[in-house]
Amino acid sequence: MSLLVMKFGGTSVATLDRIRRAAKRVGREVANGHDVIVIVSAMSGKTNELVGWVEETSPLFDAREYDAVVSSGEQVTAGLMALTLQEMDIPARSWAGWQVPVKTSSAHASARIEEIPTDNLNAKFDEGMKVAVVAGFQGISPEGRITTLGRGGSDTTAVAFAAAFDAIRCDIYTDVDGVYTTDPRISSKARKLDRIAFEEMLELASLGAKVLQTRSVELAMRYKVRLRVLSSFEEYDETAGTLVCDEDDIMESNVVSGVAFSRDEAKMTLLSVADRPGIAAAIFGPLANAGVNVDMIVQNISEDGRTDMTFSCPTNQVARAEQAMLDAKTAGDINYVELVADTEVCKVSVVGIGMRSHAGVAAQMFDALKAENINIKVITTSEIKISVLIDRKYLELAVQALHDSFDLDKTTLNEG
Amino acid sequence: MSLLVMKFGGTSVATLDRIRRAAKRVGREVANGHDVIVIVSAMSGKTNELVGWVEETSPLFDAREYDAVVSSGEQVTAGLMALTLQEMDIPARSWAGWQVPVKTSSAHASARIEEIPTDNLNAKFDEGMKVAVVAGFQGISPEGRITTLGRGGSDTTAVAFAAAFDAIRCDIYTDVDGVYTTDPRISSKARKLDRIAFEEMLELASLGAKVLQTRSVELAMRYKVRLRVLSSFEEYDETAGTLVCDEDDIMESNVVSGVAFSRDEAKMTLLSVADRPGIAAAIFGPLANAGVNVDMIVQNISEDGRTDMTFSCPTNQVARAEQAMLDAKTAGDINYVELVADTEVCKVSVVGIGMRSHAGVAAQMFDALKAENINIKVITTSEIKISVLIDRKYLELAVQALHDSFDLDKTTLNEG
Repeated sequence: MSLLVMKFGGTSVATLDRIRRAAKRVGREVANGHDVIVIVSAMSGKTNELVGWVEETSPLFDAREYDAVVSSGEQVTAGLMALTLQEMDIPARSWAGWQVPVKTSSAHASARIEEIPTDNLNAKFDEGMKVAVVAGFQGISPEGRITTLGRGGSDTTAVAFAAAFDAIRCDIYTDVDGVYTTDPRISSKARKLDRIAFEEMLELASLGAKVLQTRSVELAMRYKVRLRVLSSFEEYDETAGTLVCDEDDIMESNVVSGVAFSRDEAKMTLLSVADRPGIAAAIFGPLANAGVNVDMIVQNISEDGRTDMTFSCPTNQVARAEQAMLDAKTAGDINYVELVADTEVCKVSVVGIGMRSHAGVAAQMFDALKAENINIKVITTSEIKISVLIDRKYLELAVQALHDSFDLDKTTLNEG
Repeated sequence: MSLLVMKFGGTSVATLDRIRRAAKRVGREVANGHDVIVIVSAMSGKTNELVGWVEETSPLFDAREYDAVVSSGEQVTAGLMALTLQEMDIPARSWAGWQVPVKTSSAHASARIEEIPTDNLNAKFDEGMKVAVVAGFQGISPEGRITTLGRGGSDTTAVAFAAAFDAIRCDIYTDVDGVYTTDPRISSKARKLDRIAFEEMLELASLGAKVLQTRSVELAMRYKVRLRVLSSFEEYDETAGTLVCDEDDIMESNVVSGVAFSRDEAKMTLLSVADRPGIAAAIFGPLANAGVNVDMIVQNISEDGRTDMTFSCPTNQVARAEQAMLDAKTAGDINYVELVADTEVCKVSVVGIGMRSHAGVAAQMFDALKAENINIKVITTSEIKISVLIDRKYLELAVQALHDSFDLDKTTLNEG
């Protein structure tokens, strides 16, 4: 018996009608001969309502109580989904995270799944149950208290179940119909990808293409879970959505798979920093402690024992970064002349596993930007990604130019 | 260390503001030196919303899934209450029913509490926790699934915890400020009782004075839990509310403690039933099977082997009763000429443990009704209660006349 994991996000279960529509998709897979584990999110809006109550009650809340409150939303959807399936004469029952049990760390509000024993659910499958509906986003700590996995955690729940139960595939139903070469709102030429490699998806997810929670992709990559993203609002067919899979499973691909971007970046430059061993740690340690998510880092060539250090972070963390640097300067830990914040920049990246075997991708990218007279302020590269900071006003122009330059509206057969 | 149980109903925790107000009452008891177990209901309206979703999804729902869905409401309130107490610097944490664990039968949607182990909560009290906030209305079955106790079950949860933890008192905070001699909307002379005996409260509860769930009173009586009903919307003082307690603890009382009534009764009469041994079973068996809640039963003296049999039931069960009788007649199990339904009657009762030692209560009741020209259609009596069926249009008049006749607006010292 082959087992399939299907996950439905909040918008896919927002009303009783949508739960019925989702249940029909489950029913089709059961008719196809699969046993199914369905992972559900809370009905759209519910989690925000619960989080709002907690924050209004206690701004610096006890995360254990936060988890007890917030986890209730998925419990409701799981029960309603099981009832809907039963109405369709499909043997189904619901499970809260603690009932499976989904064993997690004690890091409340951002717990990590440590183990999912399969015996409880498998015993029920053996008895004839066709669908186990599991409340996503939650588990139980070693102390026996309810934990949650952090926002978007239901994706991670789904992949973890797929890995634990050796599922043939993990289908993530959401409100978009797959992963695109770039945001269709920015470029009308954006094309849905049939397949994308785990590594590419990771770069795209962390760069702002928020289709899947990053941790779920990492987990899928580690356990080789075939992950499919598809819309619960579109008619279903076998090629629907985008399959996130191992690089080896991708037959056709372009050198570059997509153009990602992040709109609200700030470029921060510490001018004339006294350059000495350990200076990077003295700068980025306090920033990390202040909760600043530093992304790109560039250090200029040192002259006369002084250098300029540039980093990027989200615009809403600029004030925090400035305060952390001022404190470090006051404490005598670092020495700089001025901190210049440019909050009018954005980040644009091209991502693709094809870069590994193709030279000249960076040059092509810079050429395309130059042709539009777009000035590049910072460059960073990784094995499968090249990112640049540019003025925010050029965001749309840059994305479209790069999409055109790399022929992302067309598919080519993988040569490698 | 003395332990107090405090229960807050749905209207008392309907908003974050009301939860704060309830938490202040808990805080005062902690300041008084008590450890406290707080039992909470779902926020007012939440349970109805969840039940509505279940019923819309699946009219003949799986009660196990109903319980999984519906129990989530109390879980939310428990977390929010714990957070509110923590904000007041009171060491508190929440517990879902399954975490305590509240062990119940497997009768989903109407489970009975079988055991409440005290070690988990006591270990936390020993560590310095001052308040355990427990989600009411729920528990866990021997199979490890969430159960609920039926509507109003949080009262029963509260009393069960008071019994298990040997609490000095169980305070039930609700939206009325106590138990009255009769409904104040019917008689302006209605007086709040300072104390009432368990037995009286049971009769009043089952007769329609819906202040406490009947099962919670039974449980309190069995385990001698001192139960106090009081309003969460009134200023607090030591004599607030009504104490439901053992008969021996009541210093002052009238012969009759209260006048109860039930507005929507129907009087059903089977005319000319063939009278034979077993005829009562042949009539009331089918009625019970049809889910008709038969209350009063009167059999006329038999003449020529035939008799008239009269019973009462709620008006909304009349059609069901008629069908059950017709079916039994068709099956040849009973034989009657006609079934006459009078749906324009109501039941009025006087209740009081004083009746045990005072003769003439029935006579005084009938006199008071006769003085108002109210015709009595059916009479039944128990040790501490006398009930009559009368025309519904006389309901208010009868209640007021009886309240006056038994001097319920005045308190007298118990002679016994």
